[in-house]
Amino acid sequence: MARGSKSMVSTPIIIVNFKAYLEGTGESGLRLAKAAERVWMETGVTIGIAPPSTDIGLLASSLKIPIFAQHMDAVVPGSYTGHVTAEAIKGAGAVGTLLNHSEKRLRMADIQACVERARQADLMTVLCSNNPPVSSACAALGPDFIAIEPPELIGTGIPVSKAQPEVITGSIESVRRVNPAVQVICGAGISKGEDIKAAIRLGTAGVLLASGVVKAKDPEAVLLEMAMNAKP
Amino acid sequence: MARGSKSMVSTPIIIVNFKAYLEGTGESGLRLAKAAERVWMETGVTIGIAPPSTDIGLLASSLKIPIFAQHMDAVVPGSYTGHVTAEAIKGAGAVGTLLNHSEKRLRMADIQACVERARQADLMTVLCSNNPPVSSACAALGPDFIAIEPPELIGTGIPVSKAQPEVITGSIESVRRVNPAVQVICGAGISKGEDIKAAIRLGTAGVLLASGVVKAKDPEAVLLEMAMNAKP
Amino acid sequence: MARGSKSMVSTPIIIVNFKAYLEGTGESGLRLAKAAERVWMETGVTIGIAPPSTDIGLLASSLKIPIFAQHMDAVVPGSYTGHVTAEAIKGAGAVGTLLNHSEKRLRMADIQACVERARQADLMTVLCSNNPPVSSACAALGPDFIAIEPPELIGTGIPVSKAQPEVITGSIESVRRVNPAVQVICGAGISKGEDIKAAIRLGTAGVLLASGVVKAKDPEAVLLEMAMNAKP
Amino acid sequence: MARGSKSMVSTPIIIVNFKAYLEGTGESGLRLAKAAERVWMETGVTIGIAPPSTDIGLLASSLKIPIFAQHMDAVVPGSYTGHVTAEAIKGAGAVGTLLNHSEKRLRMADIQACVERARQADLMTVLCSNNPPVSSACAALGPDFIAIEPPELIGTGIPVSKAQPEVITGSIESVRRVNPAVQVICGAGISKGEDIKAAIRLGTAGVLLASGVVKAKDPEAVLLEMAMNAKP
Repeated sequence: MARGSKSMVSTPIIIVNFKAYLEGTGESGLRLAKAAERVWMETGVTIGIAPPSTDIGLLASSLKIPIFAQHMDAVVPGSYTGHVTAEAIKGAGAVGTLLNHSEKRLRMADIQACVERARQADLMTVLCSNNPPVSSACAALGPDFIAIEPPELIGTGIPVSKAQPEVITGSIESVRRVNPAVQVICGAGISKGEDIKAAIRLGTAGVLLASGVVKAKDPEAVLLEMAMNAKP
Repeated sequence: MARGSKSMVSTPIIIVNFKAYLEGTGESGLRLAKAAERVWMETGVTIGIAPPSTDIGLLASSLKIPIFAQHMDAVVPGSYTGHVTAEAIKGAGAVGTLLNHSEKRLRMADIQACVERARQADLMTVLCSNNPPVSSACAALGPDFIAIEPPELIGTGIPVSKAQPEVITGSIESVRRVNPAVQVICGAGISKGEDIKAAIRLGTAGVLLASGVVKAKDPEAVLLEMAMNAKP
Repeated sequence: MARGSKSMVSTPIIIVNFKAYLEGTGESGLRLAKAAERVWMETGVTIGIAPPSTDIGLLASSLKIPIFAQHMDAVVPGSYTGHVTAEAIKGAGAVGTLLNHSEKRLRMADIQACVERARQADLMTVLCSNNPPVSSACAALGPDFIAIEPPELIGTGIPVSKAQPEVITGSIESVRRVNPAVQVICGAGISKGEDIKAAIRLGTAGVLLASGVVKAKDPEAVLLEMAMNAKP
Repeated sequence: MARGSKSMVSTPIIIVNFKAYLEGTGESGLRLAKAAERVWMETGVTIGIAPPSTDIGLLASSLKIPIFAQHMDAVVPGSYTGHVTAEAIKGAGAVGTLLNHSEKRLRMADIQACVERARQADLMTVLCSNNPPVSSACAALGPDFIAIEPPELIGTGIPVSKAQPEVITGSIESVRRVNPAVQVICGAGISKGEDIKAAIRLGTAGVLLASGVVKAKDPEAVLLEMAMNAKP
């Protein structure tokens, strides 16, 4: 299996966004990545990690866990400074990228260009959405996954699967109507095994989470409990 | 000497911005970085490289050459996705960062926050400017270096030191008046030893360049010729 | 008929974007607006104008022609400086707004919020798109019109209806599949009656144009010839 | 005295930012503007208003009070959609513009271009700053006024002149050192005559305020009390 291969990714999937947390950066990020890798190996549940861009190349050189960039820019390789291209993400060994996270919203034309460029570079795309109409629009652009995250629940510990199940089911319906090939995962407030169980029961293919794992006292234990609950 | 230490940086300095060029990304970027390191070792002239963010950690883990990020965001570690913090840059092993490149302009309040945050993280700042009044404003914010680059000359091969020497000397004067501790380097169109010689003669502490080296047939030869001409 | 009423708008429609052209600003903009109004009165073909925001209130106070804002921000009335709200557009007497013009691209979540807020404020939305997949995504958000404009043709005088008819027909198909209630108009390079005729023949409900009229020696004559050709 | 003439502006000055408040938009904005004009006439203290852009032309056509835009874009007249040019602001009858408000931050190069373009169009500039180092940088760009507003106090009713007097005095010193021709005003939390008195005592040339007047039950009474306290 090639380094950074999309074939490593199956569902259900748990994607851990390291964000810009100190716990997910540099040495600490490496420890967290290793813990995630162990849970993946142990349970067989696909776990992806999205570390800060500065760490992608280094983590990919020593780990096998699927790595996602947190963001990608809609530019081709060339005279651009401070931009993250599909080629740089792929070249560093990642398998895909988050797009349009609520903390890094993208313009619509750029999302379309990113999805297309990522596909050409053989990268998976996890396109973030905030409500059912936006999920429809996202589906029309053909990403691999849509991650539905109501921004007001991010970081609260209140799971979207409990607080706003209709946002998830509504998004799944919207997406199916427009483009049934796109899978839906959900995020915001996910921190326990029962949250992920509920998410899967609502019809999602997994979850996107961050602080629930990254800021946990024992991230490996939390992630293990989640992965166990994600199993069919 | 610690990894990623500012003490590696002296003047004159040549900073090579790898931009988002394929030649500066992934495996190709590693080769380019090694070539730059050899020239630095051979000549003793400080050469810094600014690779894509995705490669910073990996390059820093195997090379000694001073590495700069191409961009930094004005946020503290925390709940931010797709942002590059001072801590991530430092943690990945870089010594500093470019800021406000003409291809990644920053808002004024963010530049001030970045300069301050970089200082706290012991990172050097190379703040890009486009004309003498902007250079004055930059100087007031106290970066380590100001890189004056008329945007219209970037990538043209027409050296700013020849085409617009008054922009360089005007910027140096403006900067001295406001903050004499800040050093000025220049960029845009630099591709030969004589360009860097002219830049130093005009009073700069070095150059910031990109395509002149990155897109050269033999980057190492070009860089070597430049470094020889940069010597006092 | 109320001031700024949507009921003034029927199809085929010709929307003239005054952009930031001097010819469309202040006194000159007023003259242009009056010329457009005369053509509308004379031909019965709906002509909308999109002047600079600073002129909307004044033009609406003395003219009857349907006025569109060039841009709207996705914020509710409140503590926002330099933003254009739906309420400000409506309050100034306009009937609708352009959204996501290639010169003012919006983030996807903001487009969705703008379309919804405009609807609540009884404003029409003309959502700009650049290619068929983006048109699909736009359709999912439910604007009144989608204006398909390949950015590379804007201002060239090469009509999209001739140069890239498949972009128009492809967009129309994409839009119908996702949301048949949305009408499609097209722009870029439209400057003659035959261009608009071709656009309507391809299935559009009209055109969005700018320099072809605004920078014309005799804008009224050009617009009149267009309106005559737009008639069924 | 010409319409929209800078000669109407003297110090001390009170600038009322209508923001995107409903109370400052459309018909309500017109009433507020008239109240401000009466206070100006009655007291002789310069009062400027910064209404939503959509209302500038209409207000300027029927009132004499100095009007400022809330924002300006750094583009020349031409093919730009949804941008506010110096020419549009001037043409609509305003005397100047706010720049870089904390709710509409600008990139440094754009601020410099805006200040220069505004000067060419004979418009005054009120450049917003958030702390002393940024005030220094602002001063280097040569605006007419710098408005120092700690963002964390905006809309709180806690006057900056009381909570953080050192931010004001520090900014005044920073500005004098770099460019003594620039006048400093202050904002954030200003809602009473004593606040403006304190601001002037600290060395400012006036205040920039918003909710304290716009959201007041009786804006005219509040503004009158302020103007009386601003008198030498």
